Parts: sequence; structure tokens; C-alpha cells
Amino acid sequence: MRPKILYIGDKTSKMPTSGLFVDELKKLGDLTLIPDGSEMPLEERIRLYRETDILLTHWQAMRVPDEIADDPGNLKYICHVTGEVKPYVSLKIIDAGIIVTNWGDAPANGVAEGAMVLLLAMIKDLHKRIQAIRNDIVHFTPDTHESWTLQGLNLGIYGFGVIGRRFAEMARVFGPVIRVYDPYVTDVPDYCIKVNSLEELFSQSEAVAIHCGLTDETRGSVTAELLAMLPDNGIIINTARGGIIDQDALFRELESGRLRAGIDVLDGSDRLPVGNPARKWENCIFTHHTISGSKTLPKSSKSLTNYEQICIDNIKRFINGEPLRFVMDRTRYLRST
Amino acid sequence: MRPKILYIGDKTSKMPTSGLFVDELKKLGDLTLIPDGSEMPLEERIRLYRETDILLTHWQAMRVPDEIADDPGNLKYICHVTGEVKPYVSLKIIDAGIIVTNWGDAPANGVAEGAMVLLLAMIKDLHKRIQAIRNDIVHFTPDTHESWTLQGLNLGIYGFGVIGRRFAEMARVFGPVIRVYDPYVTDVPDYCIKVNSLEELFSQSEAVAIHCGLTDETRGSVTAELLAMLPDNGIIINTARGGIIDQDALFRELESGRLRAGIDVLDGSDRLPVGNPARKWENCIFTHHTISGSKTLPKSSKSLTNYEQICIDNIKRFINGEPLRFVMDRTRYLRST
Repeated sequence: MRPKILYIGDKTSKMPTSGLFVDELKKLGDLTLIPDGSEMPLEERIRLYRETDILLTHWQAMRVPDEIADDPGNLKYICHVTGEVKPYVSLKIIDAGIIVTNWGDAPANGVAEGAMVLLLAMIKDLHKRIQAIRNDIVHFTPDTHESWTLQGLNLGIYGFGVIGRRFAEMARVFGPVIRVYDPYVTDVPDYCIKVNSLEELFSQSEAVAIHCGLTDETRGSVTAELLAMLPDNGIIINTARGGIIDQDALFRELESGRLRAGIDVLDGSDRLPVGNPARKWENCIFTHHTISGSKTLPKSSKSLTNYEQICIDNIKRFINGEPLRFVMDRTRYLRST
Repeated sequence: MRPKILYIGDKTSKMPTSGLFVDELKKLGDLTLIPDGSEMPLEERIRLYRETDILLTHWQAMRVPDEIADDPGNLKYICHVTGEVKPYVSLKIIDAGIIVTNWGDAPANGVAEGAMVLLLAMIKDLHKRIQAIRNDIVHFTPDTHESWTLQGLNLGIYGFGVIGRRFAEMARVFGPVIRVYDPYVTDVPDYCIKVNSLEELFSQSEAVAIHCGLTDETRGSVTAELLAMLPDNGIIINTARGGIIDQDALFRELESGRLRAGIDVLDGSDRLPVGNPARKWENCIFTHHTISGSKTLPKSSKSLTNYEQICIDNIKRFINGEPLRFVMDRTRYLRST
């Protein structure tokens, strides 16, 4: 079987229209790539969705209309190339039995690495040191920066899915005491201590890294009371979702200079508005949801990204009638960000 | 035997005069602590050295005069509490058979961790990101920063003593391809590739971390030609000694913006002079030989530092007639920084 494969993007679609990934897709089926379908009448889009076997979605694809749940036509499989499914596919579509997959664990290494970058930068107060150098300071003293070590640091991890686990593997080699809170996880590696509440996690930690998904349950779950349990110069690392933390409470602790933070994600757009005073705070590093990205290294040969590889692999499995990886069922859909 | 233990500091001596370390020393022998002996007549100092059994030296202790080599009196053991021995003890003293030890591998973890902080900060261009936030940039793009990953990075390590090995252990978990150059090392772990020249190391690497000692052989050994073998945006990490690199050549590559660097140590004082233009370069982070320091963490109990523990342990061994750790023989003295 040589399937029809369709992609319909929105105006700001990030799906590539040429290159290695597109070449690989063309080997697998008859590919129709519509980079900007935002002006296309809904009926026309619905007709195209029903005529294809496989639908690709990607960052800034057009959302699949719920009419497809009522009558999917030929469409059997929506392969979401990237992570967050909810803006593109409703639960109704999943409940209708159309298979939906996403990039699964593809970004885990990059996000965990990004969190490690921010954690190590914060324990050494790199922002303060950088400013001290720019401000012609010659002698660094305990007044110019805090200087901690991960060796013996009490490090809390909130959320122990694939990213939290990868982060723990990376942090472990530096010798911290790792505590984990995740109500859905029963097994943790023997180098981690499982705790039973966020209160336990925050009261025993000097630094906490957020690695859970954003759900109704986790939204705002890092409260002012929990943040107050961190010691002076305590550290928050968030590479997950901004909404997990009570952002007003966190910003109060950062504005006062009591806590430190490495913040890749913010509630809302992930970006600080122009002129926001937080932009000058030397106890924080903000990275506008880009810390986990990476490009091909100069001395490495060009290849598919992790998540492009997972997409290609899943389409091959679909064609061969094999079980797919990273299928979005109802439970995973509801719990994921 | 309850030995006499002596310490004579210079004006800027960093030896503590009270606290846990001093308490432990007092348990082991009769401790005479002279924080500032810089005004003491030489003959008086020599008399004190000859009357003690054990001499402690430390950062900014008074240098032991060579007269002690000719006639050590009772002095049998010089326990150098910290790292660099040469400013305090001459080779003549070691050749005279007085035992000299130093902190051995105590700083390895901290220096390796510091090098990892700088490496991770440079692969993500944290300095540029921090300035972009301060300059009201909203959308990070490949123009605002480079964003690499250690996964698959070709990482060279120059010098594979205890610090280089610890650094390799830490880097390994992030998934780079690790190459090692050290002419004195025959065994490397199976996750490292041993190369046979600096040319091989630099021509195959995107980032190189310096972890060798400063000797006549290594001084200036990282030449302009080697630096030119790194790709654009290639990275140098130096937490060892500034003099190992041809600093003029490195600074030319940094001023042009072609390379990036995390620089803890500089030739000379380790510190950039006030007004030096390098202080504003966003492709570098300078930390003035402080990146490996750390203080007791807020939720940890106070304890001896690694190197204080090694000193106490060695004095106990000396008292009990057991073999000492980290003895400075002629070869180690000449090869060490």
C-alpha cells in the first residue's frame, strides 16, 4: 500500500517544504504539502482530510475540524510530528478511533539538557558573574555571586516522566541528593528518593526542577507557600510549562532577590514583554522557550531530527500494519501538556 | 606520639584560625598558628620550622626557606593543605627527603563541574541570551544565539589526569563523542577515544576542554594553528591554567567573534584588567578563577571541605606510620602546576 499523506499548515506553519525529512516522506507515500491553508474554505479542507490516509500535523498546522470525528472518510491516522497535540486535534477525534501519535520521547534529551544548563548556570550565578565582568569588577567575592555545587545539593524533581528521568540521569553524575515527586509513578531508580507530597519535596530541597505536564491538576500547583519553603538563594528551574507555577508568587520571590530561577517557560506566551523589569534581574535567566533547541553541529553530518525520525518510523509501521509508538489515548491526551 | 604542628602565614594568608578544621588539627597535635609571619626575622622562622614535626602550608603561607633542606631539624613532613606547591616549597626540600603532600584529587570534582558549567553555558550561548533579554529582544532566533547540544558533540579533552577523567564522566551522560589527548596516559575508559596529537584532537573537535597541568611542555601548547582547526563557533573551555593557551591567539579568535570560550583562568593573574574590551564580548564568559569554588549549602550540615579532610587524614596516617596519600615526588612536582 502506498498511502496518501497530507499536510495543511496555517500562515505561520513550521513544516519544512523541502529537505531530508520531506524527501523521506515522499518515499513512503503520495505527499500533498499545503504550507498555508488558512484561506482555504472549510469544506475544501474537510474534503482533503477525508481523501487522505495519513494526515500530518506539525507546529502551526491547521486544526483538524471535529466534523472529521463524525465522518473520517479514508483518514485512519493523524501523525502529529511534534509534541503538543491539543491545539490541532480534539479529544472527540481520538474517541472516534482515529489513531493519533506524537513525538513521544524525542524532546526528552534536549529538554533535560536545557534544564541542566539552567541549573548549573544558576548554582554558579552566571548572570551575576557576567554582569560583574561587564561592570569592571576585578575581584569576585561572595557578594558578587553565590557559588554552590551539585555535589550534595538537595535537588527536587517535580514530575518523573521521560524528561524527569533523563534529567535525573544527567544530574546524578554530579552527586546531588535527588528527591522525586510524581503521584503517577511508583518506581524510581535507586539513586532517587521518592517523596509523597510537594510539601515534602520543597521543604527538603535547595533547588527544584519542574518536569511535569500542565494539567488541571498541576496548574498553579507550585504555590507561594511551597516557594517559601526553599532557602534563601534557592533555585527554581522550569523548562516544562509556565502555568504549573503561581507566576505572581514566583516573580515576587525573584523581584525581592530571595530566590533564583532559570526560566524557559512563562505562563502565556513564554516571553517577557518589552520593558518588563524582570529582564534586568540578575538572579534569573530567561530563555523564551528555546533552551532545548539545537542545530546540526559543524563537524557532524546532517540527519533527521529525533522527532522527524520518529514520524518516519511510525508511518512505516502504519504501512506495515505494525503497532505504532507514542499513541495518544484518552488518558495520555488528558494528562499531557 | 603527639606531634608539634606549625603554620606560618603571609599577610594575606587564607588559613582559618578557628572553626571545625582548626579544632580537628588541635585534636591531633600541639598546634601553633601564626596567621601573619611576614614581619618575623628569617632566623626566627627557621628556628620554628626546625622545632616542629609537621609544617602546614596553605594559600599565601610563608615560603619554606631552602635552609631547611640543608638542616630540617625535627621537621619530617610538610602537609600542603591546598594545591599548588611550588610557591611554598622548593624541589630542594623534596630532594632532601622531607615528605611533602598536597590536596591531591580534592578539587577534581569542583574543577570538572566548573568546566561543565562553562561548556554547557557556551553551547547554549548563555551570555548572548542574557544580553538579548536585557536588550528587550522578544523573539530569540539563530541570530541572537547559537544553540548546540552535547548529544553527538565532538568534545576534546586535553589532559587526562584526575580532573580530566572526572570531567569525562560528567560529560559522558550527555552523549558527546569524547576524544582524549594525554601523552602520559595509556588507559582511557571505553567511552573515550585516545588520539595521539593535539592536531588530531583539535581537527576533530567542535569543543575542547583544557585539563592538563602547566609545565614547560604544555606552556603555549594550544597554538594559533590548533585554534584555527576548530570550526566557526567552536568552543574552548579552560579551567586549568591560562599559560597553556597562546593567549594572544585565543583573544584574536574571540575578538573576531569566530570562536567562543568559557575562561576561568588567564595567563598571569587570571583576571581581566579594568576596562579591557574583552569584558564586553558576548561570545565569552570569564570567571576569574572562581568557578570551582563552592560554599556549604543551606540545607546541608557544615563539614570539612574535601581538602581539609585529606589534610586531617594524612596527618593521622603520618602519626600512625601509615603511607601518606598524594605525596609530591620529583616527577609529580615537576609535572604539576
